[in-house]
Amino acid sequence: MTTTLDAYPQTVRDAVAQARTSVSALHAELPRWGLVVWTAGNVSQRVVVDPAAGPGPDDLLVIKPSGVTYDELTPESMVVCDLGANLVDGTRAPSSDTAAHAYVYTHMPEVGGVVHTHSTYATAWAARAEPVPCVLTMMADEFGGPIPIGPFALIGDDSIGRGIVETLRESRSPAVLMRNHGPFTIGKDAKAAVKAAVMVEEVARTVHISRQLGEPLPIEQQHVDSLYARYQNVYGQH
Amino acid sequence: MTTTLDAYPQTVRDAVAQARTSVSALHAELPRWGLVVWTAGNVSQRVVVDPAAGPGPDDLLVIKPSGVTYDELTPESMVVCDLGANLVDGTRAPSSDTAAHAYVYTHMPEVGGVVHTHSTYATAWAARAEPVPCVLTMMADEFGGPIPIGPFALIGDDSIGRGIVETLRESRSPAVLMRNHGPFTIGKDAKAAVKAAVMVEEVARTVHISRQLGEPLPIEQQHVDSLYARYQNVYGQH
Amino acid sequence: MTTTLDAYPQTVRDAVAQARTSVSALHAELPRWGLVVWTAGNVSQRVVVDPAAGPGPDDLLVIKPSGVTYDELTPESMVVCDLGANLVDGTRAPSSDTAAHAYVYTHMPEVGGVVHTHSTYATAWAARAEPVPCVLTMMADEFGGPIPIGPFALIGDDSIGRGIVETLRESRSPAVLMRNHGPFTIGKDAKAAVKAAVMVEEVARTVHISRQLGEPLPIEQQHVDSLYARYQNVYGQH
Amino acid sequence: MTTTLDAYPQTVRDAVAQARTSVSALHAELPRWGLVVWTAGNVSQRVVVDPAAGPGPDDLLVIKPSGVTYDELTPESMVVCDLGANLVDGTRAPSSDTAAHAYVYTHMPEVGGVVHTHSTYATAWAARAEPVPCVLTMMADEFGGPIPIGPFALIGDDSIGRGIVETLRESRSPAVLMRNHGPFTIGKDAKAAVKAAVMVEEVARTVHISRQLGEPLPIEQQHVDSLYARYQNVYGQH
Repeated sequence: MTTTLDAYPQTVRDAVAQARTSVSALHAELPRWGLVVWTAGNVSQRVVVDPAAGPGPDDLLVIKPSGVTYDELTPESMVVCDLGANLVDGTRAPSSDTAAHAYVYTHMPEVGGVVHTHSTYATAWAARAEPVPCVLTMMADEFGGPIPIGPFALIGDDSIGRGIVETLRESRSPAVLMRNHGPFTIGKDAKAAVKAAVMVEEVARTVHISRQLGEPLPIEQQHVDSLYARYQNVYGQH
Repeated sequence: MTTTLDAYPQTVRDAVAQARTSVSALHAELPRWGLVVWTAGNVSQRVVVDPAAGPGPDDLLVIKPSGVTYDELTPESMVVCDLGANLVDGTRAPSSDTAAHAYVYTHMPEVGGVVHTHSTYATAWAARAEPVPCVLTMMADEFGGPIPIGPFALIGDDSIGRGIVETLRESRSPAVLMRNHGPFTIGKDAKAAVKAAVMVEEVARTVHISRQLGEPLPIEQQHVDSLYARYQNVYGQH
Repeated sequence: MTTTLDAYPQTVRDAVAQARTSVSALHAELPRWGLVVWTAGNVSQRVVVDPAAGPGPDDLLVIKPSGVTYDELTPESMVVCDLGANLVDGTRAPSSDTAAHAYVYTHMPEVGGVVHTHSTYATAWAARAEPVPCVLTMMADEFGGPIPIGPFALIGDDSIGRGIVETLRESRSPAVLMRNHGPFTIGKDAKAAVKAAVMVEEVARTVHISRQLGEPLPIEQQHVDSLYARYQNVYGQH
Repeated sequence: MTTTLDAYPQTVRDAVAQARTSVSALHAELPRWGLVVWTAGNVSQRVVVDPAAGPGPDDLLVIKPSGVTYDELTPESMVVCDLGANLVDGTRAPSSDTAAHAYVYTHMPEVGGVVHTHSTYATAWAARAEPVPCVLTMMADEFGGPIPIGPFALIGDDSIGRGIVETLRESRSPAVLMRNHGPFTIGKDAKAAVKAAVMVEEVARTVHISRQLGEPLPIEQQHVDSLYARYQNVYGQH
């Protein structure tokens, strides 16, 4: 397989090197928070090829190699693909979910990072195709409402990517639970998508446990709206 | 933002330095016992400004900065505020829950430490607005009865702090489960409040699991009372 | 408080020193296997004072100090008591459960180690006062039948110790679930009692989870008997 | 007990040394993924004695010693047996499950590794003798359908081994849940069998949790088939 990253300008090659480092480090958050076992799960980040023009169809993505354990991951082992999911740089095969990540970057220019896991509680809701209702203030903060269900989709063509994009476009949520499969999350960069992956499991678990002994109380829509607005604008260091 | 800690006497500045160290270290207990994910949760401690007069409205509090991960916390990154939740010392924005902590210190002079988490099982009871019944001897020891539910309250004004104070004033429990939100705990210092945060999750989990397969047996009120009295007076090193 | 260990022969003082080391190390197994939080739980070991005569009422026990965290435990911080629960050696107050341990050693000479925890699933069965049915081959191996429930008993007199002894005398099980309280386990030494504490939580959890979705299949009594007989005689290194 | 490994050619002794190293290291994966407590569980690997002829009844296996904790395991402490479960090399008694492993190697020449655990959720299904239905795409990928139940079988003769082999021969699944006992998994080598042990617990847990709040949606058989075919042929590094 030919390495073609040399054809890109130095600024892109530098951005790829930086993305390799941060995507490799962010993978460690998935086992740390109990979201993955063995080699499952993957994190990717978009590299904008023409920063002046902004995100576009010629961008690259950096992603986990396929079937490699978390202990073995290094910046060097990360794989670089274009948005056609073709290998651009790296000595290993990219994650088998690369096409789904690439589809999201192609159709959602505001997305800079994508994460996929089979985290237990989120996947449990996905297996019943049941959205997680918004009954926690931290869900209102982070997700702005319920966490939606995406369609059943087989790997191998555009159907997973299309299911993610169509579901997320109609929701404030940065997480979608793909039916019988598991969560995909998005963010402005890979770190934000990892945070959403951590939070979707946390709220899926808490609401699940709450419902085991009765029905959680709903939060009024106006309160969901005001919590979401505040959190998106005020929280954290500015 | 102006740093105004210089206006305080040296003894207060020393007490602040000590509180920065212990509050920073106590934050590590929250992920250690599985009470928080990502940047959620916060610990604070009161610094009494006039020890001769005792706790009062001019006191300070030391708290976690907003939106910072647990790995990054150091004594220096802790934030110092007055009980109006105004920044007194520190280079970062204080936790978005600072006003609630400050309200507690203002209205409960006996409280020297406050902790807030979204720990899973405690929050699951909170989402159903259901108090945790006192069916374990360790609950009688530590909480002296059921763990009460506080009102639904939005962030942004006094309503969270008021809900905490009004609920805890009518209970022996050092923990309140704020509806749809999560637990707040209090103690004579930050360490005692952290212990209460650990224990509230432990008993919320154990009673939840017990109830999954039937109804736990109640403990007679007189036994609850005698266990609570003994534990508050005898347990530990004296 | 007077240290009176000097009144014992050198061989006893050596045995105490050895027990301090092993009891301190064995305490680390309790948080490691998730059986305790904060300062809860305790391990003790009998020191036979007259090895020629065998275990007797003049024996000593080595146990955890009260209210001390697991991080702070060292061989030196362990506490030595006689079987009247009086302090014999150590600079700290003994565990508040010392009288229960001492009662067991007094009335069950074959017991060389005792462990007490509030481990989650075992305590959940205890809160319903429901024995764990023997539906796993590993339960038949280790416990030889169901795990029995002891009476509700208050701390402060002999009632916990008596409840443990009376329940265990009528059972093959090295574990008893004290009602609304939690498990106590016994063994030929402290290590065996710790193993029983680990195993009782494991089987309490597995049987609980199995029963959440239906009724586990019983194991015929003759098979329980043969598994128990084999395991007690054949397993491990000889 | 006579050590008889000297009677084997150097190539076999080298292969045994390599298997000791990898089997010892793979044991660390069992506590890491929460599949075992204390000394429970075991991993074995086949050593082909005549590589030209392929796997056969004269092969050896390398397995965990009986009743030894995971912290104490080293390549040297591993035990070597023939497929009659007789000790060939090692200073300790082999796992009490050795006869079951040996039976599998004898009757399934394509199997190069076997793992046994009592992992919680898999064992919970086994106690109800209920197969785990295939409602997750990762189950279709890895197991190609439901995870089957093996018969109740006592240790001490061929019945466990026979139950494993007869159940797995009629299934695509590399995992069988032995009734009232726990999972056994197989693979082309010990690493593949360990992966199957990790995955069977993961899917047993996720499907259990999904079913707690309703019925998971089935995946159509044709989709199960296509996912399984793709995963077995395409996934990972080639």
